[in-house]
Amino acid sequence: MPHATLAAFLESTRTRVEQALDAWLPRPPRVPALVSESMRYSLFAGGKRLRPVLTLAAADAVARRGSAADERAHAAARDAALPAACAIELIHTYSLIHDDLPAMDNDTLRRGRPTAHVVYGDGIAILAGDGLQAAAFELLARQPPHPDAAVSGRQLRVIATVADAAGPAGMVGGQAIDLQAAGRAMGRPLTLDGEALRGMHGRKTGAMIRASASCGAIMAGADDATVAAADRYAAELGLAFQIIDDILDVEGDAATLGKTAGKDAADAKPTYPALFGLDRSRALAAECIERCRTTVHEAGLSDSWLWPIAQWMLDRKS
Amino acid sequence: MPHATLAAFLESTRTRVEQALDAWLPRPPRVPALVSESMRYSLFAGGKRLRPVLTLAAADAVARRGSAADERAHAAARDAALPAACAIELIHTYSLIHDDLPAMDNDTLRRGRPTAHVVYGDGIAILAGDGLQAAAFELLARQPPHPDAAVSGRQLRVIATVADAAGPAGMVGGQAIDLQAAGRAMGRPLTLDGEALRGMHGRKTGAMIRASASCGAIMAGADDATVAAADRYAAELGLAFQIIDDILDVEGDAATLGKTAGKDAADAKPTYPALFGLDRSRALAAECIERCRTTVHEAGLSDSWLWPIAQWMLDRKS
Repeated sequence: MPHATLAAFLESTRTRVEQALDAWLPRPPRVPALVSESMRYSLFAGGKRLRPVLTLAAADAVARRGSAADERAHAAARDAALPAACAIELIHTYSLIHDDLPAMDNDTLRRGRPTAHVVYGDGIAILAGDGLQAAAFELLARQPPHPDAAVSGRQLRVIATVADAAGPAGMVGGQAIDLQAAGRAMGRPLTLDGEALRGMHGRKTGAMIRASASCGAIMAGADDATVAAADRYAAELGLAFQIIDDILDVEGDAATLGKTAGKDAADAKPTYPALFGLDRSRALAAECIERCRTTVHEAGLSDSWLWPIAQWMLDRKS
Repeated sequence: MPHATLAAFLESTRTRVEQALDAWLPRPPRVPALVSESMRYSLFAGGKRLRPVLTLAAADAVARRGSAADERAHAAARDAALPAACAIELIHTYSLIHDDLPAMDNDTLRRGRPTAHVVYGDGIAILAGDGLQAAAFELLARQPPHPDAAVSGRQLRVIATVADAAGPAGMVGGQAIDLQAAGRAMGRPLTLDGEALRGMHGRKTGAMIRASASCGAIMAGADDATVAAADRYAAELGLAFQIIDDILDVEGDAATLGKTAGKDAADAKPTYPALFGLDRSRALAAECIERCRTTVHEAGLSDSWLWPIAQWMLDRKS
């Protein structure tokens, strides 16, 4: 494991990503004031920044395996992955804005603050989300031309990976299934069993969490087997993340969560605790995290933040 | 001007783009059935396919200037631009779905059919739009690696161009200003004078129409001056398009338009006829089209469909 503490790595990554986002996101007059304000309102609302952390940790892990002692190489790999980390956070933020809309989950509180549509109205909130998605892809594509032709190829691969994860086969598809299961789409509500619930979460949150780690590995120049290992690690982490989210919704209180607790049960949403009970859900999450450990070990990525991040995920309280 | 007729070029381009979109867009079970159905409902609802026509016409024009007699080179340039043409139509379709939502323009009829949210509900309509935007960027990035490294550079430039045009500085920003002007955002309605109206349309429809032509030129390997000429041509065309749209809304009937006529006046929307009167609006549109002619001529692109398309735009009735 690298020197310094996980807390320091998380904190420096958050600061780095937030500064880069603030510097990069276009401002008025290039962007109309209300659109700029609404995008920034949701983007700079705090949050764990889990996805960018995974992107930079995966890039860093690949560089450490290549040259354990060369701190400059580790930093260069994190730099190469920074646009991908920022773009993925832009997409995550857009998805939160749209998911919170009255036509979707109808949430009025997020990270302890009124949601975007409460502040700006539904129309501007929809547009803020649309704009964040477009901005993500602009950030991924608009890099100065790199002398190494392989870098352009990596950029295109990252764009395709992120678009697939965010699109109808991934996040958007998962949210549609969730909406149908909650009886908020037209037609009869879908009934999800354990496998279908896992499939829904695999699309809704899993796909982008997997893209976060694999794009970090891609930008650090990893071979296909290592990109696949980063993807598997993040798939297990994402599932554990979701199970723990469901557990916290039952056990947590609004003050710690920064959102309305017990909302899943009130909405009759399918959840892991509802299907398996709290004890079995906790055991399932722990099994996922154990598989994170073996994946990281087998890929030769143990000297990295990947395993500490997985332990932190299991222990989180919000 | 090339052989064959403009009508034949328009028809063959539409067929080509629709077949490519149908073949490329992922289907169930990769994509959940309801998301796939709702995306396709709006995508295959007819329409002029103006933007893909501009993309292929611009690529074709660049190839004709390079080798007037080499039909195979013209076809190869159109092929290279086909993914961009399809991606831009995906983005255009997403924007129509979101603009029609009750939280935005609240339209229930589009191209003679109920709008997406009337058929699928607001939540699924929002997701169909979100999914179409992501699919557009996936299509632009996911091409087989090309032996010529310059092609990767062109792809990245097209992605950045499309994302900028579709994003907060372009289409999304324009729709937000439109929403504010119509008094449908929070706060006092914006009042738009002639220049602000032009700025709003320049973002809302102009930016993507410009991207359509310039991305065609980019993919055909045009130099920067030619890409800029394609952009200027399309800027004039886009403005004429919008002025004529406003005129048709006053003069047209719902049967020809396929949408509710007179809706702008009923919504108290700022329009060219409202600001300048019908006669002056017609003259403004004709001046734009004349500037299309000189731009095409000066760039050496007269042997192309670009000028016939501009004439067709001026004469259109729907």
